Amino acid sequence: MTALIGIDWGTTSFRAWRMGPGGEVLDSVTDGPGILAAGALPGGFAQALQDRLGGWLDGAPIIASGMIASRNGWVETPYLPLPLDAGALANSLTLHDGIHFVTGAVSDPDGPSPDVMRGEETEIIGHLAGGGGDGLFVLPGTHSKWARTEGGTLVSFRTVMTGEVFGALRDHTILGRLIQAGPASPEPGRDDAFRRGVEAGRQDGALLGRIFSARTLALMDRLPLGHIADYLSGLLIGDEVAHGAQDAAGPVTIIGRGDLAARYQTAFAVLGRAADIAPPGMAQRGLWDIARLRGLA
Amino acid sequence: MTALIGIDWGTTSFRAWRMGPGGEVLDSVTDGPGILAAGALPGGFAQALQDRLGGWLDGAPIIASGMIASRNGWVETPYLPLPLDAGALANSLTLHDGIHFVTGAVSDPDGPSPDVMRGEETEIIGHLAGGGGDGLFVLPGTHSKWARTEGGTLVSFRTVMTGEVFGALRDHTILGRLIQAGPASPEPGRDDAFRRGVEAGRQDGALLGRIFSARTLALMDRLPLGHIADYLSGLLIGDEVAHGAQDAAGPVTIIGRGDLAARYQTAFAVLGRAADIAPPGMAQRGLWDIARLRGLA
Repeated sequence: MTALIGIDWGTTSFRAWRMGPGGEVLDSVTDGPGILAAGALPGGFAQALQDRLGGWLDGAPIIASGMIASRNGWVETPYLPLPLDAGALANSLTLHDGIHFVTGAVSDPDGPSPDVMRGEETEIIGHLAGGGGDGLFVLPGTHSKWARTEGGTLVSFRTVMTGEVFGALRDHTILGRLIQAGPASPEPGRDDAFRRGVEAGRQDGALLGRIFSARTLALMDRLPLGHIADYLSGLLIGDEVAHGAQDAAGPVTIIGRGDLAARYQTAFAVLGRAADIAPPGMAQRGLWDIARLRGLA
Repeated sequence: MTALIGIDWGTTSFRAWRMGPGGEVLDSVTDGPGILAAGALPGGFAQALQDRLGGWLDGAPIIASGMIASRNGWVETPYLPLPLDAGALANSLTLHDGIHFVTGAVSDPDGPSPDVMRGEETEIIGHLAGGGGDGLFVLPGTHSKWARTEGGTLVSFRTVMTGEVFGALRDHTILGRLIQAGPASPEPGRDDAFRRGVEAGRQDGALLGRIFSARTLALMDRLPLGHIADYLSGLLIGDEVAHGAQDAAGPVTIIGRGDLAARYQTAFAVLGRAADIAPPGMAQRGLWDIARLRGLA
């Protein structure tokens, strides 16, 4: 019996879980269309849902988090101000077309650097609901999120555009032209190049000056062309982690997958800090917890 | 009578001067082909020279500075280590195909952040030769240079990729998509948006986090779409200037042209620092001085 269907629906990703009465995962989909692709279908988001989850739809409640609740998604829900906990998210669900949408969070809305998130708050709730403690959370990605919780409550967060800027530098600058000139296949030493980049990233001075070292080191044959991308990745992540870890007194948890999560963990290690990688399933666990608090499951 | 022909030949620019016996400018060309365009001609650099300066070539010595003496230029000359003055540059001219090429400079070649310049050293020499004093020099551009002189000698410099990164962000990230969505024509308030960006750029925290404010401020209708580009430009230049000005005790001179030089001057002013913009002609003046020290003119 299906007790709840949960969806983590992002700009370019779609993951869904069919859950039983105790929140256990009965079935899952991890490769559905993100909102850019789904929104372009003739039947839009409803068609994407039917196409991918049609067999699951037996009347069980559906809850969804992520950019699907943004201006370019199925329905735009408001952003909740901080501090914010699972109960506040549960009380603010927006029911639209039969789906309960989790709303996003806004930080410092009237200050000089307002910030927003949609989806990551649910993953952090999942970590806390699973018994994980408070602390600093890092969610690496195109737009990385750095968030802090106290007493089970989200109290601050910040977005860093590391992934997207890395892509723009790699594909559209002189550094990219050097990278293109190098070998395409992986070669030994990539991890060392990444660590070397982290060391350059943690230094003082303008970031847009430090990244030029990727060119000059290559020019002087001190960095192989095939390692420039890893060095540059390390430099940007190193700058991000060095700044973000400055006020990280407590435990650090990385919520992410695969190579990217491991790279952030490596960057913390180079900087002399321990960071745990959360087990998979945080989004599903958070959706279950929010739905349960609302009495949906 | 032509005493000297000087050329400042960059990747995408070509400026040349025909000088008389006292170094006075008799004639000039400012729109010749940069090395990318000239190198693609059937007759290469020699053809470009003949096409643009053929009428000048009466046997007078020719001196050239800039990226024309790099790996992708007419001839690759070595980089001279710091400290470096006009005499050292004069003693290191490379004669090739009848042209005296000014060599470039290298900073910290064996350290973690080696750096190089080609062409800017000649402009700084021009400033000093014209009676300008020592201090901090900022040469804004695709790759800005920050250089320091003491006693007429170049003692340190650093490259900051501000211009190129701004272009990559504007054209190839979510910030660029917001900029494209805005009006194309200039509108009032652009200078204020730039100054607001400088204030955000001078703040602490990861640069790739601070730039996200360009999106969130627009999302919250606190920054018009038509002002995002100016705000982002201010933010990147503000970060660069705030870092670069930290150890600038003496006078600051901006060597550059037009709007970009004015924007750097504005950024210094927002940060409470005075900066002069050098008069035009620094490259020509530097080429004359180096040639004269070598006995060519």
